[in-house]
Amino acid sequence: MVEKVILLNMFASMFGMRARVALAAKGVEYEYKEEDFRNKSPLLLQSNPIHMKIPVLIHNDKLVCESLVIVEYIDEVWNQKYPLLPTHPYQRAQARFWADYIDKKLYDPGRKIWTKSGEELEAAKKEFVEILKQLELELGDKAFFGGERFGFLDVALVTYSTWFHTYEKCGGFRIEEHCPKLIEWVNRCLEIDFVSETLVDQAKVYDFALGLRKVFNIDTS
Amino acid sequence: MVEKVILLNMFASMFGMRARVALAAKGVEYEYKEEDFRNKSPLLLQSNPIHMKIPVLIHNDKLVCESLVIVEYIDEVWNQKYPLLPTHPYQRAQARFWADYIDKKLYDPGRKIWTKSGEELEAAKKEFVEILKQLELELGDKAFFGGERFGFLDVALVTYSTWFHTYEKCGGFRIEEHCPKLIEWVNRCLEIDFVSETLVDQAKVYDFALGLRKVFNIDTS
Repeated sequence: MVEKVILLNMFASMFGMRARVALAAKGVEYEYKEEDFRNKSPLLLQSNPIHMKIPVLIHNDKLVCESLVIVEYIDEVWNQKYPLLPTHPYQRAQARFWADYIDKKLYDPGRKIWTKSGEELEAAKKEFVEILKQLELELGDKAFFGGERFGFLDVALVTYSTWFHTYEKCGGFRIEEHCPKLIEWVNRCLEIDFVSETLVDQAKVYDFALGLRKVFNIDTS
Repeated sequence: MVEKVILLNMFASMFGMRARVALAAKGVEYEYKEEDFRNKSPLLLQSNPIHMKIPVLIHNDKLVCESLVIVEYIDEVWNQKYPLLPTHPYQRAQARFWADYIDKKLYDPGRKIWTKSGEELEAAKKEFVEILKQLELELGDKAFFGGERFGFLDVALVTYSTWFHTYEKCGGFRIEEHCPKLIEWVNRCLEIDFVSETLVDQAKVYDFALGLRKVFNIDTS
């Protein structure tokens, strides 16, 4: 059977990038469809009527939504190459726990850093750094979150690094000063070809964020 | 190796009950430790320093937190008996997607139903019923969410049914009038011995909720 794989995405999304990194790890070829979040396609609205959000993976007409669910799906379908989740149940549980932690905690303070000012910005920066420090603590002295190999939790977090430049420029701080080991980990991830080739350039994300600020008349002065 | 399994729980929690139902499905014996949410034990605070919440599963000194992560862990460790997640990746993705939907959507409006009044209560009831209707639609004409057998998504949702009496009494509405098929599904789940023996009595949950209202001086008049 010929595999037909389509990804509905928006290029700067850290969630969509998770699906792209996972597909790249497995060497899966797919059709890429860029969505405009201000004018969502009928295909997106039909494919994800519950959340109406990218990413959506369409695999042989089967629809899979929500980025972490998509990454696990990709890992299970293309299970012969580059396994992402560990094999041991406890390590799998740890990876899922921390991926869930990232999803619950990191997006909101990150978003506030480039959309808010004054006290709200300062509070968001503080919260953001505390979460990263927690993740740095979980990383410890390991090369990757799961140990020696790049895996599920690395996929879940590394896509956020494409926004680090935006957070730093808008927030006036340097993440490396607070979490040097986490930045070393990002650089280690970027030494892997399929990661560096998939992650979107940080300057493009920054331009995108500045564009959004204009679109929504966000005043951060 | 002798298995040592401990569950830190709070009896009325729909999240803790998920772990209990999963353990019961597998026939796993465990030590149960009831937590007082107003005076959390040092063991709980040490076991789940990130969220400081029940349930926590302690399996041979390994700590697993977050209810859906715990249920998947239980399913993977005791994989010989009563599999909960389907075997096919697409069905697994669907089960995970909807379990995540329940976790993102259902708790807040449910909580408002027994803690709010007036317009807030009415809005919460409306939202709650809409979410249940969406889940009823996903159930369709199947016996259980995964098909013919009780599984992962059934575990994720059925524990909420122990609060239905509380929602109905506090909200002045009947869920069955809006979602008759979902109530039929609850009753089907309750025909399974390990489910009915594990789920907490709805009257006890209601007493608990009324007690909480007093503790927190919640005025819903």
